[in-house]
Amino acid sequence: MLTLTPGQIEQLETPCLVIDTEQAKKNLLAMQQQADRCNCRLRPHIKTHKMKYFAQLQLRYGASGITCAKVSEAEVMADGGINDIFIAYPMVGDFRIARAIRLHRRIQRLILAVDSRPGAQALSRAATVAGVTLEVRMEVDTGAKRTGVVMENAVELAKYITGLPGLRLTGIYTFKGLVYQAQPTVDKQQAAQEEGAFMAQVAKELEAAGVPVADISAGSTPTGLAVAQTGLVNEIRPGTYIFNDYMLTKEGAATLEDIAGYYYVTVVSTPCDEYAVIDGGTKTFPMDIPLDAPPYHYPGYAIVEGREDLTLRRMNEEHGMLVSKTGRTGLKVGQKLRLIPIHICTAVNLQNQVYLLQDGELILQKVDARGMLV
Amino acid sequence: MLTLTPGQIEQLETPCLVIDTEQAKKNLLAMQQQADRCNCRLRPHIKTHKMKYFAQLQLRYGASGITCAKVSEAEVMADGGINDIFIAYPMVGDFRIARAIRLHRRIQRLILAVDSRPGAQALSRAATVAGVTLEVRMEVDTGAKRTGVVMENAVELAKYITGLPGLRLTGIYTFKGLVYQAQPTVDKQQAAQEEGAFMAQVAKELEAAGVPVADISAGSTPTGLAVAQTGLVNEIRPGTYIFNDYMLTKEGAATLEDIAGYYYVTVVSTPCDEYAVIDGGTKTFPMDIPLDAPPYHYPGYAIVEGREDLTLRRMNEEHGMLVSKTGRTGLKVGQKLRLIPIHICTAVNLQNQVYLLQDGELILQKVDARGMLV
Repeated sequence: MLTLTPGQIEQLETPCLVIDTEQAKKNLLAMQQQADRCNCRLRPHIKTHKMKYFAQLQLRYGASGITCAKVSEAEVMADGGINDIFIAYPMVGDFRIARAIRLHRRIQRLILAVDSRPGAQALSRAATVAGVTLEVRMEVDTGAKRTGVVMENAVELAKYITGLPGLRLTGIYTFKGLVYQAQPTVDKQQAAQEEGAFMAQVAKELEAAGVPVADISAGSTPTGLAVAQTGLVNEIRPGTYIFNDYMLTKEGAATLEDIAGYYYVTVVSTPCDEYAVIDGGTKTFPMDIPLDAPPYHYPGYAIVEGREDLTLRRMNEEHGMLVSKTGRTGLKVGQKLRLIPIHICTAVNLQNQVYLLQDGELILQKVDARGMLV
Repeated sequence: MLTLTPGQIEQLETPCLVIDTEQAKKNLLAMQQQADRCNCRLRPHIKTHKMKYFAQLQLRYGASGITCAKVSEAEVMADGGINDIFIAYPMVGDFRIARAIRLHRRIQRLILAVDSRPGAQALSRAATVAGVTLEVRMEVDTGAKRTGVVMENAVELAKYITGLPGLRLTGIYTFKGLVYQAQPTVDKQQAAQEEGAFMAQVAKELEAAGVPVADISAGSTPTGLAVAQTGLVNEIRPGTYIFNDYMLTKEGAATLEDIAGYYYVTVVSTPCDEYAVIDGGTKTFPMDIPLDAPPYHYPGYAIVEGREDLTLRRMNEEHGMLVSKTGRTGLKVGQKLRLIPIHICTAVNLQNQVYLLQDGELILQKVDARGMLV
């Protein structure tokens, strides 16, 4: 649990996120040790922290490489000396492929993703022109209903990819996407079992069709460890576990004590008893987790620590209205408050920098890859 | 209406925002001319564009200064040579006041905001210690129910402020906040009339109590011009009018032709007929305007131009699922699409840079003050 001295709280320029580096390290170590115990490689997704510093830490603790969503994110991580990167996102668009090929030449191992014939074709064409062979993984949809080839078409697409020049298919990957799916947490173990079984089945079918599958990759933070424990995959790609958040506590994937990132805000106005205004709104607090949707019915866009009567539901761009259910917030102008993020990944992405508490000292750390959308 | 050549569309690295600079200039000029006609000063809010380039343009066209929400935004604008800045946000927090005093020393005119006794007290204390006199405006709540002193307490607070050393009260300001208030557009003229009347009334009461009021400032993009036309205020602070967005067309404050900012995205996956996946999700498209709330019931988090059957409602961080009501999207992997932003202010804030179309050429422009939250 993050502990700051009164002097340190005074020093904070709000609104801001403060990361408890010790807790983050504990979270990294715990996941690494558990993955090791399952003989499963850990290739963490850096979308949560977007900082070179933490990516380097993940590798030092034993990660086999990192996962990124976009080529622009991967470039930033390569600038930080990261040499083994999987971009787990369909590599589509000539502009993006050109950057990926340049990145391929810079680092030891770059793995790209394909999930369609036209996508594979364009990538093959560009690789051939550039005179390179690109390592690729095929994405399989195991229920998230976003990207990924549907399982019935997996063998056909895999065979197609292996027939293309310039591409070397070495594995398959998936994202089960429990979070956002509004499924009750009791399904988590079962979902992980299913995820592992689906992937093992696809791998078996591919091998039977003459397509060797070296890497079978699955797992987010909610399902990651459970999938590793099935023994049916050999790589997991959780991301949020480094900091955790309120949503993960509801998913049963973390406890409040595991949370390593907190907001601090300042009360700027108390025009009446019923509500107070804090110095963060929709440009500070992400709104991607719907408040009143099942199964968790989040009470607000962030949780005010120790004050269950206060809810943050109404915001403008830079204003957050904290309303008390008791009719009296009791808050004072200038007072600082600590809030728990609902979803830390989109919270970090709104910040240019965060504070790290390291060896008792607060330091400002740039969020290197924030806003890297291409 | 933004027009790009096929070659220019090919050149775009997506997801991205493209700004039609000519249209933006037209919007700036139109607002300036109309404000001039009312003998009302225009002090545009830069929260929408967050770029020095456009702030400089606004001044060149006749703006009397600019408005910012935060001191960190104002610092960026001062770096761009802007010398007259109003930070329309309660100046609360020692860390923020210290930065404001440093900024006060750098530029010709800095106006700060107060809306409470403790806020005014802390500002006065810091100004006295620093040996400076800070120009301040008092915020009055005319119905937005966020910051601002309630009207009944305005005279008392104004008298209190004028009694404090180190502060020079020169005006009052408000934000009526029609947008987000779910009021039908027919109320716009009436709301503007009310806004002007409220402010004139407060000014009159202040003057009667011996507090001179030089500046009476009001108005956002939806109400701005209508308030100026009442002749009851002498400054307006619209922001969104520079680019406009889908929300403003619903508010009746802009037409589709007035929109100067568009998204471009690439289709990355078409796993089935019913939906296609684009390369932007919750880190690209803001979610601050609720989809199914009255009065406008927005169909999605952005509007696909020319394809009313497609809706963007389901997103993950980097995935946007475009669903067709017809059951067939007909979209192809690699295809680029143009989307209209619902709320351009939060859309720009998610970008590190945007494309500007200028004299027929596309150039990349940094969003200088994005993420400036303090």
